[in-house]
Amino acid sequence: MGIKQRSGNIFDNLDNKPDAIVIENYCEPYIDDNFFYITGLKKGIFEGCAAVLFPDRNTDLLVSELEEESAKKSSANLKTYRDQNSYNNALRDSLSHVKSIGLNFDRVLYRKFQDLKKMFPDTKFVDVSDGFVKTRLVKDKIEIETTKKACEIADKAMEKIPDFLHEGMFEFELAAEIDHLMQKNGADKSAFDTISSFGKNTAEPHYTHGTTKLSKGDFVLCDFGACYKKYNSDMTRVFVFGKASEKQKAMHKTVLDAQRIGFDRIKPGLKAQEVHNSVNTYIDNTEFKGRFIHSTGHSIGLSVHDGGAGFSQDCDIELEENMLFTVEPGVYIPGFGGVRIEDDILVKKDGMEILTKSPRDLIEIL
Amino acid sequence: MGIKQRSGNIFDNLDNKPDAIVIENYCEPYIDDNFFYITGLKKGIFEGCAAVLFPDRNTDLLVSELEEESAKKSSANLKTYRDQNSYNNALRDSLSHVKSIGLNFDRVLYRKFQDLKKMFPDTKFVDVSDGFVKTRLVKDKIEIETTKKACEIADKAMEKIPDFLHEGMFEFELAAEIDHLMQKNGADKSAFDTISSFGKNTAEPHYTHGTTKLSKGDFVLCDFGACYKKYNSDMTRVFVFGKASEKQKAMHKTVLDAQRIGFDRIKPGLKAQEVHNSVNTYIDNTEFKGRFIHSTGHSIGLSVHDGGAGFSQDCDIELEENMLFTVEPGVYIPGFGGVRIEDDILVKKDGMEILTKSPRDLIEIL
Repeated sequence: MGIKQRSGNIFDNLDNKPDAIVIENYCEPYIDDNFFYITGLKKGIFEGCAAVLFPDRNTDLLVSELEEESAKKSSANLKTYRDQNSYNNALRDSLSHVKSIGLNFDRVLYRKFQDLKKMFPDTKFVDVSDGFVKTRLVKDKIEIETTKKACEIADKAMEKIPDFLHEGMFEFELAAEIDHLMQKNGADKSAFDTISSFGKNTAEPHYTHGTTKLSKGDFVLCDFGACYKKYNSDMTRVFVFGKASEKQKAMHKTVLDAQRIGFDRIKPGLKAQEVHNSVNTYIDNTEFKGRFIHSTGHSIGLSVHDGGAGFSQDCDIELEENMLFTVEPGVYIPGFGGVRIEDDILVKKDGMEILTKSPRDLIEIL
Repeated sequence: MGIKQRSGNIFDNLDNKPDAIVIENYCEPYIDDNFFYITGLKKGIFEGCAAVLFPDRNTDLLVSELEEESAKKSSANLKTYRDQNSYNNALRDSLSHVKSIGLNFDRVLYRKFQDLKKMFPDTKFVDVSDGFVKTRLVKDKIEIETTKKACEIADKAMEKIPDFLHEGMFEFELAAEIDHLMQKNGADKSAFDTISSFGKNTAEPHYTHGTTKLSKGDFVLCDFGACYKKYNSDMTRVFVFGKASEKQKAMHKTVLDAQRIGFDRIKPGLKAQEVHNSVNTYIDNTEFKGRFIHSTGHSIGLSVHDGGAGFSQDCDIELEENMLFTVEPGVYIPGFGGVRIEDDILVKKDGMEILTKSPRDLIEIL
């Protein structure tokens, strides 16, 4: 028996149900991760491949010869193609009795949509992006177990960071060690470009790493995650290289308290935005008012920013059991530095469980 | 003075010139690398940011607060936004006098195109994808120098691989070492998911790595590259862990000879497909007829598969000085193994230069 698709069925979450859903992959990085959701495949690139999902969950998998062996692990019906012509024929064959095709309007490229319209001129195209978002937000058992493993791998790397820090080291060297630790521990790759920033660079939330050298007294901000069997973790810790100043301590304590306030609110039935509002209000009542410049968290899964929902001002979805999110408040002072503390959590029946286990207290590297 | 955009001007390669070109980034991985081509930025993620390019090469850069500091390195006109509303206002402001907007139809997401149409109902939208492809194929001096550095980093890692190989090691462990070596040597990250396959897994060109253990007599196929300041290298070597069999030697020699035939043909004025045809014909006249199942190479640059051109059957572009390509013939025998040899080359006035320097002869790890 092959690998099974995830237990969530997109068609269950669609008002306007098409006869089939088509997910086409293009060149890297234009790979729609819904392809992996549908096929359950845990490895491989599958550039130019496609999955066709039918309401009875039968799935056709159009795969190039370059990845035929890997594709055999899927329980989908395999159709191997060699060139564009045989790909088109396979797609026509799969969709020969279909009157309406569902596409993920959020992720389909304009050009590819035009190509499909030409190929199937009498077919109706239906937006199924909402169905994907809704279905993927609630994780099945395998997704949760896989994410826990991705968290464990990130935790193991975080634990070792203090051993690597030494005066004068470059930010990019620390990133290299973090990624190496995760891959040696079984990560397929880093979940995203590892952030390892020093000193005032920590004030810029999306700064990754560069050639800044570590100095005494610097904040060290590490934000990274592991990608394991296509599922991702995402966590952040901040260290002080040396003795922390009163200001550094105050920033860290504020963020830690804010995160705890977020944790305490999370439970099924709450609107996602309320978590953000509580965290944001808390920070805005401290000396760091206005310094929290992003949302409190995002859904996580096959994609690091998974399914377009999160703890943000505009997101009014209701939390449900088995959703996975990050909780990551921060405060940023340009020219000085920033603190963010981020963990991955699982919404449970009566609240939530923190999946990332690294200590959250401020660690001084003395 | 800030970082300058690349010297190629998209507008020069457009028949139907719009008043402005807009490149919008979405969430990772839906980042259009033309954003970096236009802005010249060498670091950062720039999710949700946008670049607006005018025919006089003036550029507006809409950047979120999360990456404001990094964006300041660009010489573009910075417009910082905090939320969707201020983003929309900044975009409206940039395009207030514009009657036609150029979009990259190959990369723009369908949904985002619809959003833009709603936002600018009286504006004409023009496809500028061809302009990007044409302009980006020919590299400027900085692009070539940056790519040479990316090649050098990959070469340094390739050189060390024999030191790491030991019986029983996992494929993923070798991938971890390769990525670590590249990052320690200054790569911002790996150019793509590093392929380190052993034994019969080498027969699948897009297999990345897994938990297969290294055994005596195995092929070891390593296909990887460095991403350095957004530019990429991409090379492949095959080792034999132990003494090579006659069949392994024959496969390797065939591929090496085929690559040389490709190298010898490359020069300005030749149609790209002719390189592939020569290589393919050569292989099809050996005992490995039909075992070369992909194209001979692809343009490389900001994207690993850059600009949609390459040494493939259908590509009839004429080679020009300062184009960068991979040359990567291979033969694959399912159940046995595969050999691919890949180098990055620069088209020069009288021929070409190989930028990746690792030895191409078969190395036996005895």
